[in-house]
Amino acid sequence: MSESPFQAEIEALCKRAKAASIAVAELSSATKDAWLLHAADRLEAEKDAILAANASDMEAATAAGVARPIVNRLSLAAGKWENMISGLRDVAALPDPVGTISEMRVRPNGLRVGRMRIPLGVVAMIYEARPNVTVDAAALCVKAGNACVLRGGKEAFQANMALADVLRAAAKETGLPEDAVCIFRTTDREAVTPLLGMDRYVDLLIPRGGKALVQRVMAESRIPVIAHDEGVCHVFLDESARPEMACDIVLDSKIKQMAVCNALETLLVHRGAVRAVLPTVLKALHEQGVEVRGCPETREVDPEAVAASETDWAAEYLDRILAVRVVGGIDEAIEHIQTWGSNHTEVIVTESYSNAEAFVRRCNSSAVGVNCSTAFADGFRLGLGAEIGVSTTKIHAYGPMGLEGLTTQKFVMFGEGQLRE
Amino acid sequence: MSESPFQAEIEALCKRAKAASIAVAELSSATKDAWLLHAADRLEAEKDAILAANASDMEAATAAGVARPIVNRLSLAAGKWENMISGLRDVAALPDPVGTISEMRVRPNGLRVGRMRIPLGVVAMIYEARPNVTVDAAALCVKAGNACVLRGGKEAFQANMALADVLRAAAKETGLPEDAVCIFRTTDREAVTPLLGMDRYVDLLIPRGGKALVQRVMAESRIPVIAHDEGVCHVFLDESARPEMACDIVLDSKIKQMAVCNALETLLVHRGAVRAVLPTVLKALHEQGVEVRGCPETREVDPEAVAASETDWAAEYLDRILAVRVVGGIDEAIEHIQTWGSNHTEVIVTESYSNAEAFVRRCNSSAVGVNCSTAFADGFRLGLGAEIGVSTTKIHAYGPMGLEGLTTQKFVMFGEGQLRE
Repeated sequence: MSESPFQAEIEALCKRAKAASIAVAELSSATKDAWLLHAADRLEAEKDAILAANASDMEAATAAGVARPIVNRLSLAAGKWENMISGLRDVAALPDPVGTISEMRVRPNGLRVGRMRIPLGVVAMIYEARPNVTVDAAALCVKAGNACVLRGGKEAFQANMALADVLRAAAKETGLPEDAVCIFRTTDREAVTPLLGMDRYVDLLIPRGGKALVQRVMAESRIPVIAHDEGVCHVFLDESARPEMACDIVLDSKIKQMAVCNALETLLVHRGAVRAVLPTVLKALHEQGVEVRGCPETREVDPEAVAASETDWAAEYLDRILAVRVVGGIDEAIEHIQTWGSNHTEVIVTESYSNAEAFVRRCNSSAVGVNCSTAFADGFRLGLGAEIGVSTTKIHAYGPMGLEGLTTQKFVMFGEGQLRE
Repeated sequence: MSESPFQAEIEALCKRAKAASIAVAELSSATKDAWLLHAADRLEAEKDAILAANASDMEAATAAGVARPIVNRLSLAAGKWENMISGLRDVAALPDPVGTISEMRVRPNGLRVGRMRIPLGVVAMIYEARPNVTVDAAALCVKAGNACVLRGGKEAFQANMALADVLRAAAKETGLPEDAVCIFRTTDREAVTPLLGMDRYVDLLIPRGGKALVQRVMAESRIPVIAHDEGVCHVFLDESARPEMACDIVLDSKIKQMAVCNALETLLVHRGAVRAVLPTVLKALHEQGVEVRGCPETREVDPEAVAASETDWAAEYLDRILAVRVVGGIDEAIEHIQTWGSNHTEVIVTESYSNAEAFVRRCNSSAVGVNCSTAFADGFRLGLGAEIGVSTTKIHAYGPMGLEGLTTQKFVMFGEGQLRE
């Protein structure tokens, strides 16, 4: 493999982050929170300049023929600015996970051992063209005691530079190393390659965004990766599901926000519930303009439904389309999920104690619920206080990932001269 | 990259493990424990045949010119057989981590959310030529609800085949899928390459053994890796260290077991403790035949000491050699560890409350101790009940890794029809 022209630049960036990470790990909560609050004030003071950079990004993207939804996602307007600022203040208010000791116990020889929560060191993140993520990610990484290396989507470049400059200036002004927040100052895709080999300096890599990017990072990275991959989420309407609740949960899971990873993509229906529940649910979906791709039994009760193929069972539509399949019972529903799901979020709607218990026990996706919307698979709604993404990698932080997922635990041992027996 | 001739064979093996993992995840603790106890009995019954295979491995290794220590490590004699058998019974007696729910809380809307501990799925392990590890690893993986794919060192091949056959037969006889324990039936190194790409079927890969192997696996694997890499462990004798305790801890950490990853490799001594402590410590080390590689100040008090170079600060000797460096105080000691250490185990010997506290807080190696031997960085001695290795990867399971490290947590959500606000 020939060396990337960005090798030296990216290595220098990661080295600076590593050096900063030692200081960041030792900061008090008060200092980190002071930075977060000061950064919020500083951003407010420079709002006009940042929004101008953002507008310029949007113009350039439009001129380059970038699709409208992606251009819209770039925008810091429509409440996104306010959410970004209040996000910083919310993170400041969260308890600091660093330094807490748990599982303390006394060994037979009197040695006291426990596990202390510590920062990971350097966290690198590769993410889509959403400038607010630059601020969210930096806030969470630093609050958890880490330095971060950020690489945002290229369409957001100018806004990202403007935001990172403020975060770094605020760091300097509150006693943090500026390199607590390191950011790629190039949009060249070739610059990603050297990052993937920086295992000497980077402790965790979080890729977010397209499936192709996540797959490439998993294949090429020497750094541990927590992937934030697709969500092929299921709702299973059991025979005993209450029709009204079933309908509400399906609509809430599918319609309220369609372009998010916890949105419903495949509806599974117990054969015994088809008559009582399915026509009402499908009617409501059609009223919302949802295209149904159904199995043969679904199409018997819904003439409008298109025939589903195997690709539909694996599809993350993120759109006004729903795959629907009738199953013989809970075993078949779970088997379908194990075969076609993406380990993200599954919900059963049931009045059966045994089936609720079995579904929760046997479905090993990252979030499994009974009688609730799939929308609750979200760091904020689950009470984590904040979220850096939803991990579909099973190790370390499976599912919605907050501050704790950006830390690890070391063993601590307090002795009075203990030797081995 | 051209396809390995073992691609189809290894893919089929991992696929079988994946299929088995779904059944293993749902087994009751009683069934898993019955397998462990039955496997212990079955192994005892076939002891002669297995030891014959082991003897044949040792003969072949000797004939092939394999180094004596590696041939010795192959042996199942000298208590290793008994430890292996009692290990199975000990794992049966450990509490089953699967299914426990923690952090249960009620959200403002009444949704009850918690985290349930679940198996990872399929755990693959690549390990050194020690046949007892085949049994230890299978026991821990399956007790944690996983299927495993094992690839042991080639010198142990015949014993590994004999052991795996018994484990699989015992599985069949106690209601487990045989493929809960899958093993490579080839010693060809080329067969490892396809394993590294099996991210569709394997959830976690644990490489143990040589640094070269671990580095290669980290570079090439598409599967999440928890590396069990080298231990460059430090003891820091602070100014206030009690001389007798200092001497005992250094000797215990260095001499009692030298070829293990938690053995002491570099001794750091506060300049103010050199006179009172160092000559006694070095004399005791020399009496044990330890070669000292010292900094100039060390050599002033120890004419026998060889001059240390930078390679010594980074060396994992696993032998009767110790690097010794005099430092100005705790800051310099911590800086040395951050520069040269391997994130494994560090111990301070001190009577200073502040320095003990600072050392524990600031050293972020996987195990950090005060006034105790480095030997306690071990799953058994820390009270984990068992150990599959000591992870130097910061995420997921940092340090000694037991049953819990072979599981993960999913979010569980219990509602009564909750929708988003």
